[in-house]
Amino acid sequence: METAGSDSAGIKKKPASPRRKKPFHAPPGTAPGTFVVPEGALKPRVKIFSYDALSFEELEVSGVLAIKSQIDSHPDKNHWIDIRGFGDKAFFEQVADCFGIHRLQMEDVVNVYQRAKVEEYQGHLFCVSRCIKEENGIIINDQLSLFVGSNFVISIQDKYEDLLEPVRDRIRHGKGYVRKYGADYLSYALMDVVLDNFFPVLERVSDRLDELQDALIDNPTRDLLNRVLQTKRDLIMLRRSIWSEREKMNDILRSSFPLISETTKIFFRDSYDHCVHVLDLVESYKEVTASLMDVYMSSVSNRMNQVMKVLTIISTIFIPLTFIVGLYGMNFAHTNPKTGEDLPLNMPELYSPYGYITVNAIMILIVIGLVVFFIKKEWLTKGN
Amino acid sequence: METAGSDSAGIKKKPASPRRKKPFHAPPGTAPGTFVVPEGALKPRVKIFSYDALSFEELEVSGVLAIKSQIDSHPDKNHWIDIRGFGDKAFFEQVADCFGIHRLQMEDVVNVYQRAKVEEYQGHLFCVSRCIKEENGIIINDQLSLFVGSNFVISIQDKYEDLLEPVRDRIRHGKGYVRKYGADYLSYALMDVVLDNFFPVLERVSDRLDELQDALIDNPTRDLLNRVLQTKRDLIMLRRSIWSEREKMNDILRSSFPLISETTKIFFRDSYDHCVHVLDLVESYKEVTASLMDVYMSSVSNRMNQVMKVLTIISTIFIPLTFIVGLYGMNFAHTNPKTGEDLPLNMPELYSPYGYITVNAIMILIVIGLVVFFIKKEWLTKGN
Amino acid sequence: METAGSDSAGIKKKPASPRRKKPFHAPPGTAPGTFVVPEGALKPRVKIFSYDALSFEELEVSGVLAIKSQIDSHPDKNHWIDIRGFGDKAFFEQVADCFGIHRLQMEDVVNVYQRAKVEEYQGHLFCVSRCIKEENGIIINDQLSLFVGSNFVISIQDKYEDLLEPVRDRIRHGKGYVRKYGADYLSYALMDVVLDNFFPVLERVSDRLDELQDALIDNPTRDLLNRVLQTKRDLIMLRRSIWSEREKMNDILRSSFPLISETTKIFFRDSYDHCVHVLDLVESYKEVTASLMDVYMSSVSNRMNQVMKVLTIISTIFIPLTFIVGLYGMNFAHTNPKTGEDLPLNMPELYSPYGYITVNAIMILIVIGLVVFFIKKEWLTKGN
Amino acid sequence: METAGSDSAGIKKKPASPRRKKPFHAPPGTAPGTFVVPEGALKPRVKIFSYDALSFEELEVSGVLAIKSQIDSHPDKNHWIDIRGFGDKAFFEQVADCFGIHRLQMEDVVNVYQRAKVEEYQGHLFCVSRCIKEENGIIINDQLSLFVGSNFVISIQDKYEDLLEPVRDRIRHGKGYVRKYGADYLSYALMDVVLDNFFPVLERVSDRLDELQDALIDNPTRDLLNRVLQTKRDLIMLRRSIWSEREKMNDILRSSFPLISETTKIFFRDSYDHCVHVLDLVESYKEVTASLMDVYMSSVSNRMNQVMKVLTIISTIFIPLTFIVGLYGMNFAHTNPKTGEDLPLNMPELYSPYGYITVNAIMILIVIGLVVFFIKKEWLTKGN
Amino acid sequence: METAGSDSAGIKKKPASPRRKKPFHAPPGTAPGTFVVPEGALKPRVKIFSYDALSFEELEVSGVLAIKSQIDSHPDKNHWIDIRGFGDKAFFEQVADCFGIHRLQMEDVVNVYQRAKVEEYQGHLFCVSRCIKEENGIIINDQLSLFVGSNFVISIQDKYEDLLEPVRDRIRHGKGYVRKYGADYLSYALMDVVLDNFFPVLERVSDRLDELQDALIDNPTRDLLNRVLQTKRDLIMLRRSIWSEREKMNDILRSSFPLISETTKIFFRDSYDHCVHVLDLVESYKEVTASLMDVYMSSVSNRMNQVMKVLTIISTIFIPLTFIVGLYGMNFAHTNPKTGEDLPLNMPELYSPYGYITVNAIMILIVIGLVVFFIKKEWLTKGN
Repeated sequence: METAGSDSAGIKKKPASPRRKKPFHAPPGTAPGTFVVPEGALKPRVKIFSYDALSFEELEVSGVLAIKSQIDSHPDKNHWIDIRGFGDKAFFEQVADCFGIHRLQMEDVVNVYQRAKVEEYQGHLFCVSRCIKEENGIIINDQLSLFVGSNFVISIQDKYEDLLEPVRDRIRHGKGYVRKYGADYLSYALMDVVLDNFFPVLERVSDRLDELQDALIDNPTRDLLNRVLQTKRDLIMLRRSIWSEREKMNDILRSSFPLISETTKIFFRDSYDHCVHVLDLVESYKEVTASLMDVYMSSVSNRMNQVMKVLTIISTIFIPLTFIVGLYGMNFAHTNPKTGEDLPLNMPELYSPYGYITVNAIMILIVIGLVVFFIKKEWLTKGN
Repeated sequence: METAGSDSAGIKKKPASPRRKKPFHAPPGTAPGTFVVPEGALKPRVKIFSYDALSFEELEVSGVLAIKSQIDSHPDKNHWIDIRGFGDKAFFEQVADCFGIHRLQMEDVVNVYQRAKVEEYQGHLFCVSRCIKEENGIIINDQLSLFVGSNFVISIQDKYEDLLEPVRDRIRHGKGYVRKYGADYLSYALMDVVLDNFFPVLERVSDRLDELQDALIDNPTRDLLNRVLQTKRDLIMLRRSIWSEREKMNDILRSSFPLISETTKIFFRDSYDHCVHVLDLVESYKEVTASLMDVYMSSVSNRMNQVMKVLTIISTIFIPLTFIVGLYGMNFAHTNPKTGEDLPLNMPELYSPYGYITVNAIMILIVIGLVVFFIKKEWLTKGN
Repeated sequence: METAGSDSAGIKKKPASPRRKKPFHAPPGTAPGTFVVPEGALKPRVKIFSYDALSFEELEVSGVLAIKSQIDSHPDKNHWIDIRGFGDKAFFEQVADCFGIHRLQMEDVVNVYQRAKVEEYQGHLFCVSRCIKEENGIIINDQLSLFVGSNFVISIQDKYEDLLEPVRDRIRHGKGYVRKYGADYLSYALMDVVLDNFFPVLERVSDRLDELQDALIDNPTRDLLNRVLQTKRDLIMLRRSIWSEREKMNDILRSSFPLISETTKIFFRDSYDHCVHVLDLVESYKEVTASLMDVYMSSVSNRMNQVMKVLTIISTIFIPLTFIVGLYGMNFAHTNPKTGEDLPLNMPELYSPYGYITVNAIMILIVIGLVVFFIKKEWLTKGN
Repeated sequence: METAGSDSAGIKKKPASPRRKKPFHAPPGTAPGTFVVPEGALKPRVKIFSYDALSFEELEVSGVLAIKSQIDSHPDKNHWIDIRGFGDKAFFEQVADCFGIHRLQMEDVVNVYQRAKVEEYQGHLFCVSRCIKEENGIIINDQLSLFVGSNFVISIQDKYEDLLEPVRDRIRHGKGYVRKYGADYLSYALMDVVLDNFFPVLERVSDRLDELQDALIDNPTRDLLNRVLQTKRDLIMLRRSIWSEREKMNDILRSSFPLISETTKIFFRDSYDHCVHVLDLVESYKEVTASLMDVYMSSVSNRMNQVMKVLTIISTIFIPLTFIVGLYGMNFAHTNPKTGEDLPLNMPELYSPYGYITVNAIMILIVIGLVVFFIKKEWLTKGN
Repeated sequence: METAGSDSAGIKKKPASPRRKKPFHAPPGTAPGTFVVPEGALKPRVKIFSYDALSFEELEVSGVLAIKSQIDSHPDKNHWIDIRGFGDKAFFEQVADCFGIHRLQMEDVVNVYQRAKVEEYQGHLFCVSRCIKEENGIIINDQLSLFVGSNFVISIQDKYEDLLEPVRDRIRHGKGYVRKYGADYLSYALMDVVLDNFFPVLERVSDRLDELQDALIDNPTRDLLNRVLQTKRDLIMLRRSIWSEREKMNDILRSSFPLISETTKIFFRDSYDHCVHVLDLVESYKEVTASLMDVYMSSVSNRMNQVMKVLTIISTIFIPLTFIVGLYGMNFAHTNPKTGEDLPLNMPELYSPYGYITVNAIMILIVIGLVVFFIKKEWLTKGN
């Protein structure tokens, strides 16, 4: 599970940990095709949905034999083998052997950082989808692996709660086309429901960008900068995911896999359109995010401008006044104390009856003049 | 309807709302092909234009049967079924059943955020166009959906006022080629008139960019920054729209749809050229917008420069003067009051008859010198 | 005519007007193929150059009949119908009917904002070229439209003075290959002479960029910023034009138009190389322009640095001095005036015979020390 | 060996040297195909692993004859000729002659800056891989050259310690598929183990980026800037390497080399997926690095903001106070000392019993007012 | 010759001139295929190298007849006609006629700003290569034109000193393959030696970038900015050159020119690899250069930060002190001089025996406190 955190309050404490929880690859040198069940993986829960247009059966099974016998005893029905949890290596090896799955593919199932893709191998299709959802402001990127045969679909995920519940409901209640069409349509339905979950995530990202833009113009804090950077990382990750989804859909449409019927291809064409639409939106949001960095920089500059203006206004008003009062603090002698000589040119203002009032009046006029100057320059207007 | 607001006065109050009015997708997990009529949708108004080169008939109808019978009774005429308003789900289901329209396509009609595209399905073409117009400085992006058959075109939109009135007039008065050619030409005429509306919108954007550039160099306010960002978003949205229009036109030209005659393809080639031209302009304007952000940043820096200069000029002039007057405010005693000892080296200037005048003269000379220095440095010139 | 002004002195007065003189498209909803002669268009002047390797004839004609009869009476010669001026709609309709020109093409001829392109239609080629020239520092982007038949070329432009005079001279005096080869070579010669005019324009742009770079490093004024932005817009426009020219040349080389002989294709290959070369240069200049914005920003920062240094030097020198003189302006009493008590610790310096001189000496030393500090920091060096 | 240093403590001392240790090309004009053994190259150590599914033999040999005879005496086994060290030109010439290797290829082996590639020549494949590892924070980019025949693989490297040990172990202990499949699988295993080493390097880069982002926001030092730039260079180099790896894998998959069996191609498809994944990550990290430069710039601006605020707070508080105390330092005479005339309007405050206390109170109120102002402006809050 | 100057000391004096010495195109309207010998062109020097594997002959000839007779008299040998200097139009016209060279090609030979390319015409290949070398820190971009026939190669350059001397030596001394293979290998050898010269130039650029990065972080001067911009221009020019070289090599490999044997194609494949490698490096260096602009900007900001800190430190220390000394410079009367009334609340500090010492002590404490504050803020640490 690749998580991309944001909005998280505790971002300062252990910043590295919320960004990525597990290493994204087995250690180099591991023999290809040897899959390693990650530590702490959940025990697999297996359900089989066997259905045709008229009937429907939902079984909770354990063990490959039960799966095999259920499929073999109803060869004319479609079977969805719905596996959640990785914690049983032997079970997955039996599944691989039973359904003719290549060990590299089983490695890809367990190593949950694959790009979305479709591969044909020995009569079945192997599809990987990226499952995007948002929990508490953190975007979570899980993996859904599908093996599609002529009358069965095996879906494998590492968590119990997933995005496929709407499809289960549709099978249970016979809603939509899912019970009417074959296993290929089921694989479409599963990949489509996962793809649909990009939209609410993108809507949240779009809202977040609008909020950030408004907040940044008012007050460029470091926390907002962190959130912009996090959103950028989220969008980079989303773009990577949807790009590979789009390639997968294109491969399905362009390649002539015998398992995918023409009727179902019309539906996949719709999924392809959704991928392109999502990609368009992600690219747009990336451009908006890029301009948010500029907005942040300009807001920082604006704040400095505000600070500078306060300094300049205070200094410009008081420095000349301080000069004036300093001027009349000089000690030039009006009379030479020793000789008693009169020095009438030395600061006669000090002995004028209205000297003090005149100086105060001049200073008040200076202040008024400067305030008018600042108003004219619009320095006292907020928000410039 | 995706709206991209700008110029709006009330941008501060509820900033998120003018940007996007409705969610852009049905909730994830909805069964594919189940279309949901949006709340508050207008009741559909249906008109049929039946025409050939010589005759013309305009009917206001309700119900699919009326449409069907009109087409069937005039199989040699062309029929434009002009539907505006979504507010009747049953009606659209009947239209889909009657004309063999796939439910996914009907879903695309109602879900008005599709990319422009063309699809062939069971003997008809399904075309989506983006309708761009500007109202009160806000760019509005509506959708026009077309189903093109051999002798009919169904157009569906969600609002009553639209961009197609010129085509209606041309049919009514027999202007241009529209009555002479078939349904494929009508579909061209409808898509072309919608495409033509990109040009006045782009002209407005171009004017806005010119205004913004001039305004930003003079006075970089936050409001202008907001408008630059809004223009950038508008252009991103326009690029997305015209890019898909161009792909659609290319698909029509490259694919060999039997419904599109060679004669009409010449007209579509012209539309393709228009798309490329619009795309060129949008790209150019995006580059101009990018440089406007730089202009904003440089104007903010320039303003800070102005503030700094005022501070520096005031400080540079008055700080040295304040020092001088402070100098002669010192209390070094000319005579030791207790001993009566003469201290002739202590500030004799204070007892010179011309001391005060000399000091004032020196200070005036300093001011003149500094003003000359600032003039030479061009600090007093505005606009640098 | 799309004009992209720069160097213009009057840029401040009416900035919006010199940028674009006319709207770039007919009003939306105009029926396709209805061409509208723009207001104030010049009356068409028509010349026919009829030539073969040995003979040459230059006629000034009016009316389509005269053109037609001249071509029909000399079927073995090549004919260049050289039309300048749009101001006669009837004439152009007759030309279209006479030579089998599609109305959409005639619309493209009159609507002079087309991209460069080549189209085949009913036995003739329709070519559009962009004519770039510079007048008074403003880059002008006109259109040359060509219809190429087996033994004739029709060229149409909207102004009397054009770039084709060298080709007329070559025909008149039998220079080069033009009289030896057919109409396809003539079309090449016309498009090539127009293409050649990109080079002097680019040379001017290159010179302008060099000047701007030197000027910006010295003195980043708003006027220079305006010129950089204008040059960027010019280059965006040039890139758009040359890109479409390159596509046109590529279409001519790749498509197998029967009208273009293999011999002439060798010449078009040369034109294609020129297009690629021009495109290379335009891209290079665009990158240089992008770095000029950075240079401007850094120069603005440098200027602020200069201002800051002046402020800091003045403040750093005089603020400590002002403190010192303030210190000895304090009124601590050496003797309590009421009690006559001696207070020998209160400012004894004031009564020292060398107090004033010592203080002055200390202040001079401080000034010297700070100047040495500034010299060491290279703050007094210009140009840093 | 191209090394890209970072984290290195001694970066200040000799910054140019750790970046590139050797020139990356032979002097111009050297005859093609003349390979030059670099100075100080290690003496070659040659091992042969001869194996089939059941048996395994590991020999240390010297000389081409020993290699040849070992292969010839076990034609049904697979042989890995594992050569490390370049320091014997004659030996490599004999190898080239013995196995039909082109001199240009041998030049590429010794000139260790090749892009990853695959070439077919005279019945063998020549593959170059980039070996990326990190030592002491410095990313090292070595070369692995492979010659793949029908029953042998020759691997050549310039250092004794390498990344291939896991493959040697798998052959020794018969783990995985390597002993079961042919020489083509061995070549895959060698290239795959090398490719796997990109992942831990990228993980370290990712960690470094997270650390740098956190550190930059707090404290933008030059050293951090240097590390960001170094990381950018590392990523540019990694992108170059993985891009060519991806092209190599694509060539292997798309070309129909008879030496590569369909079974092995499934494994190469997996390697191709890994390349695309690595490329995705490198591109993402490059985008993150680009935003780190912005973070650095904004942090520098923020620091300046802090400095400005301190200056402004101090100045804004004390400059008005200094004015007030200067005001009451003026020497306006209350009584004309000569005439004894009373001047009651001159600074009567000085003779009020509570004058001094009132002034002090006013100044305290001003300070309190300004502090409230700064608190309201959030200037005293850290981190803004 | 296109020169791109850098490192030049005299860059300030006449900045426009060193950048481009000659116009890069003949005046527009010149008839195609009329080549103009540039003014001041050197008189052509012609050498013929006639060789086969066993024998070798080197002749200095003048006139086309001598060339022709030498080739005709040794039809089984390979002939390299090595022409340097353009200053004889008649000679080149004779060469064109004698070897069947198109006039457009001869125009390209003389007009030395062509992109690298390969063209087939009437049984010979026409190849253009860009010759990059560095002289005194200025990158010089010359042209090498080759005409390749079945048993001859004509090379034409405009200067006497060139990059081909190593090939001449290899022919003279029979080193390498050049005497063993045919004229196609000779053309390869000539183009390869020219291509090899990109590497030392790039190494110099790489060194320059390292130096600039180190210098910029320490001291961002305008001169360094100029050098960064010049390096950017150099890299833009190098990219243009190597891009066209790569396209040329690709054309040679993909097209099936009968003159190029399969054996020689293996060598051209090596050249293609070199082109891709050079292109990779140029792109990398361009990215590094882009980040150098950012480094410059950040260093300018850092310098301003330094200046600001000096100002702030000085102001923060002395402005409060100046206030304090101003405080005790106030003239509040302790005794009303007229009434003799005691005003004990007015500045009693002035009459305290330890008043002056106490004030000085307080001021020293303030200074110590502020210095501690600055040390804690790390403002006195250099390099932040």
